[in-house]
Amino acid sequence: MSKGLPNKKRGVHFDPDNVDIVAEQGDNLLQTAIAAGVHINASCGGDGVCGTCKVLIKKGGVDSSRTEKLSEEEYKQGLRQACQSSIITDLVVYIPVESRLETAILGRERKELAAGAEQVEALATGWRFTPPLSKLFIGLPPPTLNDNASDLSRLLRGLKQQYNLNTISVDFSVVKKLAKVLRDGHWKVTVTTLLNGSETRWDSKRRPTIINIEPGDTRGKHYSLIFDIGTTAVCGQLLDLNRGKVLAQSVEYNGQISYGEDIITRIAYCQKPGGLKKLQQVVIATINGIIKQLLAQAGVEVSHIGHIVATGNTTMLQLLLSLNPKYIRLAPYTPVANFIPQVRADSLGIEVGEHVYLHTLPSVSSYVGADIVSGILGAGVYQRKKLTLYIDIGTNGEIVIGNSDWMVTAACSAGPAFAGGGIKHGMIATDGAIGDFDINPTNFEPVVSTIGEVKPKGICGSGLISIAAGLFEAGVIGPNGKFNTAIRTERIRQGSDGYEYVLCWSSETQIGKDIVITEVDIDNLIRAKAAMYAGCQTLIRSVALTVYSLEQIIIAGAFGNNINISKAITIGLFPDLPLDRFIFIGNGSLLGARLTSFSTDMLNDEKKVARMMTNFELSEDATFMNNYIAALFLPHTNASEFPSVNKKLTNCHEVKLKSGVTT
Amino acid sequence: MSKGLPNKKRGVHFDPDNVDIVAEQGDNLLQTAIAAGVHINASCGGDGVCGTCKVLIKKGGVDSSRTEKLSEEEYKQGLRQACQSSIITDLVVYIPVESRLETAILGRERKELAAGAEQVEALATGWRFTPPLSKLFIGLPPPTLNDNASDLSRLLRGLKQQYNLNTISVDFSVVKKLAKVLRDGHWKVTVTTLLNGSETRWDSKRRPTIINIEPGDTRGKHYSLIFDIGTTAVCGQLLDLNRGKVLAQSVEYNGQISYGEDIITRIAYCQKPGGLKKLQQVVIATINGIIKQLLAQAGVEVSHIGHIVATGNTTMLQLLLSLNPKYIRLAPYTPVANFIPQVRADSLGIEVGEHVYLHTLPSVSSYVGADIVSGILGAGVYQRKKLTLYIDIGTNGEIVIGNSDWMVTAACSAGPAFAGGGIKHGMIATDGAIGDFDINPTNFEPVVSTIGEVKPKGICGSGLISIAAGLFEAGVIGPNGKFNTAIRTERIRQGSDGYEYVLCWSSETQIGKDIVITEVDIDNLIRAKAAMYAGCQTLIRSVALTVYSLEQIIIAGAFGNNINISKAITIGLFPDLPLDRFIFIGNGSLLGARLTSFSTDMLNDEKKVARMMTNFELSEDATFMNNYIAALFLPHTNASEFPSVNKKLTNCHEVKLKSGVTT
Repeated sequence: MSKGLPNKKRGVHFDPDNVDIVAEQGDNLLQTAIAAGVHINASCGGDGVCGTCKVLIKKGGVDSSRTEKLSEEEYKQGLRQACQSSIITDLVVYIPVESRLETAILGRERKELAAGAEQVEALATGWRFTPPLSKLFIGLPPPTLNDNASDLSRLLRGLKQQYNLNTISVDFSVVKKLAKVLRDGHWKVTVTTLLNGSETRWDSKRRPTIINIEPGDTRGKHYSLIFDIGTTAVCGQLLDLNRGKVLAQSVEYNGQISYGEDIITRIAYCQKPGGLKKLQQVVIATINGIIKQLLAQAGVEVSHIGHIVATGNTTMLQLLLSLNPKYIRLAPYTPVANFIPQVRADSLGIEVGEHVYLHTLPSVSSYVGADIVSGILGAGVYQRKKLTLYIDIGTNGEIVIGNSDWMVTAACSAGPAFAGGGIKHGMIATDGAIGDFDINPTNFEPVVSTIGEVKPKGICGSGLISIAAGLFEAGVIGPNGKFNTAIRTERIRQGSDGYEYVLCWSSETQIGKDIVITEVDIDNLIRAKAAMYAGCQTLIRSVALTVYSLEQIIIAGAFGNNINISKAITIGLFPDLPLDRFIFIGNGSLLGARLTSFSTDMLNDEKKVARMMTNFELSEDATFMNNYIAALFLPHTNASEFPSVNKKLTNCHEVKLKSGVTT
Repeated sequence: MSKGLPNKKRGVHFDPDNVDIVAEQGDNLLQTAIAAGVHINASCGGDGVCGTCKVLIKKGGVDSSRTEKLSEEEYKQGLRQACQSSIITDLVVYIPVESRLETAILGRERKELAAGAEQVEALATGWRFTPPLSKLFIGLPPPTLNDNASDLSRLLRGLKQQYNLNTISVDFSVVKKLAKVLRDGHWKVTVTTLLNGSETRWDSKRRPTIINIEPGDTRGKHYSLIFDIGTTAVCGQLLDLNRGKVLAQSVEYNGQISYGEDIITRIAYCQKPGGLKKLQQVVIATINGIIKQLLAQAGVEVSHIGHIVATGNTTMLQLLLSLNPKYIRLAPYTPVANFIPQVRADSLGIEVGEHVYLHTLPSVSSYVGADIVSGILGAGVYQRKKLTLYIDIGTNGEIVIGNSDWMVTAACSAGPAFAGGGIKHGMIATDGAIGDFDINPTNFEPVVSTIGEVKPKGICGSGLISIAAGLFEAGVIGPNGKFNTAIRTERIRQGSDGYEYVLCWSSETQIGKDIVITEVDIDNLIRAKAAMYAGCQTLIRSVALTVYSLEQIIIAGAFGNNINISKAITIGLFPDLPLDRFIFIGNGSLLGARLTSFSTDMLNDEKKVARMMTNFELSEDATFMNNYIAALFLPHTNASEFPSVNKKLTNCHEVKLKSGVTT
C-alpha cells in the first residue's frame, strides 16, 4: 500500500462515539483515538502485547501488522489492533464493546486494578477527556479609532471568531482586571472558562463562564484540586488538566475530630454559639494544609489552580459550606440541599485565587452523601446492566445495590473503626500506617507492612482487617473475637484494656512504644463489620434478592493503596463470593470527583446518578437488628454463609496439626 | 342588562397584547386592564373626561355610559371608554392604536406631558407591567419520614407545581438561610426571583434566579431603587413594584465633584495611588445618602429593597464599579465593557441587603453611555418610524438621531453649565433652585420661580435658559451675550466677574447674598448651547438630512420638573421647529431605568438598543468647529435659522417702543 504522502490529511470517524477527527496519513490509530478523546482500552500502553485495543475497520485502509493477539478469523473480519495500525485512507472505525467497556479490566486481578488510576477510571465508560475547566489562548487585534469597541466586546468577538463560542458569561472579577491584562499581554491572553454554573444545576444545558484571564499563553499551567471531606480524614488530589493525571495526593485528619469523632457529636457542637463557624474554620484549615502539601509535592503555583471539586458525606459538605446541619439529626432528617450551587472557594477561606469556584457533587439524603454519588458515578455502576453491590467503607459505611435501571442505597452506621477511630493504635491510611499483616501460624510472629514502607506508627483500616483475619485464621482469637490465652507467646499479654497482641515492639516503631491490637479493638471492628454486613443483607433482601445474585462487588474506601478482599471475607465483612467478582477502587469519592474534573460528560451525569438512587432507612427495617446480632461473630453466626472461610480455617487447622503447634 | 351575579368570574382577552385575565362581573374594564398589565392611555385617571381610553369591544357585553368624548358613530362601532365600562360577560377587547400608542400624548401640550410619570412612560409602547423582580408566596408541605426531600428540593418542587417554574437558579446566600426561614415561616415563605443574570446578558433567554427568601407573606413589600449617576448630580427614585409607581425621588451632588468637575479630571485623579478607590467610595456615599432619604420619604424599610438599576455615562458607571476608566481618556478611547455583568450591591458598599443585585444598563462607547441608551429605550425612540432627535442635556450633552431602523449618536462636550457648573450661582435642579424666570420688559424687574417653591439658593439649568432668554428678549443682553449697560436699573451692575444682573436681593434668598447672573455665566451658557446645537447640526448633516426633516424632538435632562422649550429655542439651544414636535421627558436616563424595572419586555430590549446605535465622533468632523463658532451668538450667527425667534424679538421691540422704554 502507498505510504508516499505523509503530510496528507485523513478524516477518521469513530463509532459508536460518533466522533470525527482529522489526522495525517501515517498517524498511529490508537494515538489518534486518544487525541480525539475516544477511549480504547490499551492496558499495555500501546506495545501490542495486551490485545485489548482491537477495533473494527468498517471503511478505509490501515497499515497494520498481525500479532498473536489477533486470530486469523478476527483479522479477516476487519479487526485490527489500534496500537499496531497506521492510517492510510479516510477511515470509519468501530470500537467493539470489549475494547471500550470495562470487561477487559473487570476480568483481571483486583490487585492489578488498584495499580493505576487509568484502570480504575476506565470503569466508567463513554466519557471523553473534556475537562469542564478550559484554557483558551487568544490573540486580539489592538483597538484603533476605527475599531474602538470595548475591551470586553473585543474579547467576546475574538472568542466567537476563533473558538465559535457564542453564548458565554463573564464574571465581574474578569471585567475588573480585563483592561490591564489585555494590555500587559499585548492583546495576547489566556482565558479560563468553566462549564459549571449554579444557574445550570437544574438544567441540562450548561454554558461556559469566563472565570479568569491571564496575560500571554498560560495554557501549560492548567490544574485543579479535588477533595473528599470525610468525617475522619480529608483526602486531596492535585490534577493536571492538560494530561488527565493525578500529580499529587495527600490525606490528613479532618481538624473537626477535636470537636467530636462522629457526625452526631459534630452536629450537636454546631448548635452551640459560634459552633458552626468554628467547625467550618477547622475543616478549611485542614484543606489549606493539604493544598500546601499538594502544591509543594508537584511544584505547582497556587495561582495556576483553576477549580475545586469537593465530595463528602452530607454533614461534612454542609459544614464545609457553613450550612447548619441541625435538621440532619432531627426526624425526618432533611438536608438543606442535595444540589448545592457553586461558591467562590476564597469566600469560604480556601487559600486559592479569587477566580476559583468550588463545585460540590450532589447528595441523595442526609445519610447518603455526595461521596456515594461520586463513587457510583466514578465506578460507572449507573451505566451497566450488571447487578452491582457498591460498598463504601469510611467512618460510616454506605452501600448501594443496583445497575443502570435502578439503585437502592442505605447508610450502615458502622462507626469509625475502619478509619482508625475507636482503635487503640488506629490511624488514617497515611505513611506509617500498618496496611497489611500476616502471622506465622507456628510461632505466632507477625509480618507487618506499612504505607510508605516506613517504620510503623499505627494501624489503618486495611491493616485492621488483615490483623483480625490473620489472628482469627491462626487461632489467636476465636469466632467471638476473644484471645486464646492458652497460646504461649510473649506477644499475647494482659494490657490496660484487657488482652492484647503486640504487633510491633517499641524499638521497631516511630512512636517509641509497642503497637498492639486489643480485645476492645477487635470488638469494635466486629461491631463495625457486622453493621456493614447486616446492612448489605438487609438491603439485598429488601429488593427480594440474595447475595448470590450479585455479579459485581465494588469496594471503595480510603484505605491507602489496598485492601485484602480475601481477608475481609474471612472476618465476615464482605459476602463470601468468588474473588473475581470483587473490584477494589480505593477512594471512590475521589474517583468520581476526578472524572467530573476530567470530563464534562461525567459532570453532566452527576445529577442523574443522584436522582436514580432511592434511599432506604435500615433503622426502619425490623430485620436489620437480627441480621446485625447474627453478624457479631467471625465470620458469622451462620457459618454456612461463609463456606470458603470454613474451608480455609480447616486447612489452617490441618497445617497447625502437621506442624505440631498446640494451642 | 343583567347585573345580578356580582361574584361570577368573567374571562377578558385583550388584543393586540394577547393577554387573558379573569375578572369579576361588574369590574371596571380599565382597572381590569391595569391588573392584567395591559396599557391603555387614561390621562385623566379614569374620570371619563379625557377620552383617551377608548377600546373596541369585539365580543361580549359591557355596561357603559356614553360621554361626550365618544361620538355616536364610534359608539355604534363598538368603541367604549374603558374607564366608564363595567364587565358583564366574557369579553374580547381590542385596544386601538390611538389608545395605546403615544399619539394621544404627543399631540398634547408639552407642559401636560411633564405632569405625570405615567404619561412619559407611555412613550415606549408594547410593554407589559411584568417587573423582572418578582415575589412569589408559597406554602409547602412540611417534611415527613415518607417525604424527607432536602429543603431546597421541596422548595423547587413547590415552585414547579404552583408557579410552573421549571428552570430556576438559586443563589448560595438563599441556600444558607433556607432551613431557618422555611421553619420560621412554618413552611409558608415568600421567594424573590430576579430575571437578570450576568450569565444571560449575551443571550436572549433569561432564566429566573431565587435571590431571597423570607418567612411568611411579604409580597406587599416589594420595592426597588434606580439611580442615574451623573457627573454632577446623582438622581435616585424608589419604586413600588406592586403598583408601578415612583414613591420617592431625590437628587444630590455627586460627591466626586470635590475631585474634579468634569470627566477628564476625574479620570486623571484615578491614576493617582488610591484614586480610583476614593472616587468609588465617594459616589457610593452619595448613593447611600440618597437611599436614606428615599426610604425616609416613603416610609420603606431597607430590607424590602430587592433590586437596583443604575445608569449613567460610561465613566461614571466604571467609577461606580471600580473599573479603571484610564483608556476612556486615551485614544482610541475604549471603555472596559459596554455590557457589564450584574454585581452584588453590598459588595460595592451600597447599604442594602446582601441579596440585592445592581444591574447597569449597557452603554455604546466611552462617550455615549448607559444614560443615553436608557433614554432611547425609555422614550421608545427605537420603536417608531418617526424621525427623532433625542437630546440629553447634562454635564455633557449627548444627541441621538434616528428611528426604529437606524440611530446615530454623538457626544457634544457641552460642559457643565446646564448642570449648574461654571455658573457663579449655578446649582443642580433641587429645592431652592431658580427653575424659571421672566422679566418685565418695562422696568426690568424679574419674576423668579424656584423648585419646591422655597426661597432661592441658586440657578439650575432650566432657570439659566429662562434667564438668558428673558434677558435677551428684553434687550438686557445682546446677541453676543454682553450686557446693555445703557439700561438704567440697579439690577445691572459691575460685579467681581464683570457685569452682572441681580436676580434676587440677599434678603429674598436662603444664602444671605444677592443671587446674580454674570456675563461670564452667560458666556459659559452660550458656549454650552453652541456645542449642543453644532452637535445636532453636524450629526444631522452627517446623515444627509436637515433639522426640518425631524418629526419629533425629545428633550431629556435632569432639570427638575420642567424646561421651557420656547425659551431654549430663543437662545438657540434647540432648532427652531414647531413646539408641538417637542417632548420634554425630564430625566430620560431614569425613565429607561424605571421601565426596565417595571417590565421584563423593556429589559429584554436594552441590549438591542445599545447595539442599534452607531457612534459618531464630532471631533473628527471638519465642519463641527465651523458650526460651533457660528452658534456662539443668541440665537445664532445665521439668524434665518431661527425665524420664530426673530419674529418674537421684533414683537418685543414693538412692545417696548409702545411703552416708551428707551435702552
